[in-house]
Amino acid sequence: MIRSRFQQGLDDLKEKLLAMGGLAESVIEAASQAYTKQDAKLCQLVFEREREINEAERRIDEIAVDLLAMQQPMASDLRFILAVLKINADLERVGDQAVNIAQRAVDAMQKTRPVDIPVDVPRMTSAVSIMIRRALQSFVEGQDDVAEAVLSMDNVVDRMKDEAFVALVRSMETDPANTRAYLDALLVTRNLERVADHATNIAEDVIFWVRGDDVRHHHGRRLEDKRAADSSKT
Amino acid sequence: MIRSRFQQGLDDLKEKLLAMGGLAESVIEAASQAYTKQDAKLCQLVFEREREINEAERRIDEIAVDLLAMQQPMASDLRFILAVLKINADLERVGDQAVNIAQRAVDAMQKTRPVDIPVDVPRMTSAVSIMIRRALQSFVEGQDDVAEAVLSMDNVVDRMKDEAFVALVRSMETDPANTRAYLDALLVTRNLERVADHATNIAEDVIFWVRGDDVRHHHGRRLEDKRAADSSKT
Repeated sequence: MIRSRFQQGLDDLKEKLLAMGGLAESVIEAASQAYTKQDAKLCQLVFEREREINEAERRIDEIAVDLLAMQQPMASDLRFILAVLKINADLERVGDQAVNIAQRAVDAMQKTRPVDIPVDVPRMTSAVSIMIRRALQSFVEGQDDVAEAVLSMDNVVDRMKDEAFVALVRSMETDPANTRAYLDALLVTRNLERVADHATNIAEDVIFWVRGDDVRHHHGRRLEDKRAADSSKT
Repeated sequence: MIRSRFQQGLDDLKEKLLAMGGLAESVIEAASQAYTKQDAKLCQLVFEREREINEAERRIDEIAVDLLAMQQPMASDLRFILAVLKINADLERVGDQAVNIAQRAVDAMQKTRPVDIPVDVPRMTSAVSIMIRRALQSFVEGQDDVAEAVLSMDNVVDRMKDEAFVALVRSMETDPANTRAYLDALLVTRNLERVADHATNIAEDVIFWVRGDDVRHHHGRRLEDKRAADSSKT
């Protein structure tokens, strides 16, 4: 069976997006390690990788727009291409978060003595990194149940962020001389939480693509209720 | 001259996006006032408005996807519709930032006595609000020079955020009993900066749409250079 040029284009798009996802996942892990191990070389690696991600984003956008322009896609192909465009933008922003974390690492390295941070950054990194991987897996395999699992992991990461917030404010209050170091840690946890949000966006796009259904603001409303409930804590 | 149904659809889309932009601008201003004036009613208004924004986003997405599916758009119409989809997502996230700021306001109101904050939040709000307005104006009028102006305003807002950071860290160090209040202010400035980033994204989309050119990572590179230069400060 001969596959059409259009179908080949779609396969190419999917493959390139997966490679981009791999880059995004690895750059977040590198940034987190750069921060926890105070490793200047890893920071440089993050800055370089982010530029690669930007290049990849541009290429994927071009292919997607060309496919849309080339011919009138069927409804399900159209939804697929639109999902790719959105996921692509989210993965690029994961790269931005990695750069922000690496900047915090550069900051932290300027301190003369290391400060003990009451937050398990590697654990939180591993959680958001799994979220990115699962979100992309749900996309490749068109599995909306895997995408649903990503949505519930987002709540776990939110809780980690809230706990980190409480612990770090306490540290700042009792040890004000090291406020800056605790603040760096707090901002790193916020960056990781934003990565989790991007994974959530991807999962929502997958569900939209698979079901042709807009889950975003149903989930959004759940989050709002949760947020209202949590507001006293954060 | 009879306008085609497709052309009417495009006009409708533009009009709805503008209304959404107006909502986004007003909700950010309301959230900022809720924070500076510690106004619980305004917080409620922000939470309600954000739900309206979510509804508006969904309707706009539907219209755009229908237009793409209805017929094969010309290259420039295709770029226009894709720009609308991206701008729509950015405006919805401006609403999320407003909710975050209103949450900080709810937080701040739980303090027994008010704390003097060394940051001009209304001035920063007015800057990001102008950025959103100009970004949408550049879109409606197809003016890439207005969009360019938005990109340079982003640097001004970044500087405000950096100055706020330095001032607030100093306050936390010298007045640790009020750490939480200074931290709320710091997070509000970060939320406002993210609104500025969304305005920047919109301006970049407009330039892409008008010029058919991808400015994102040229500007991105400029930002990176700037970021590297600023890293010692923040």
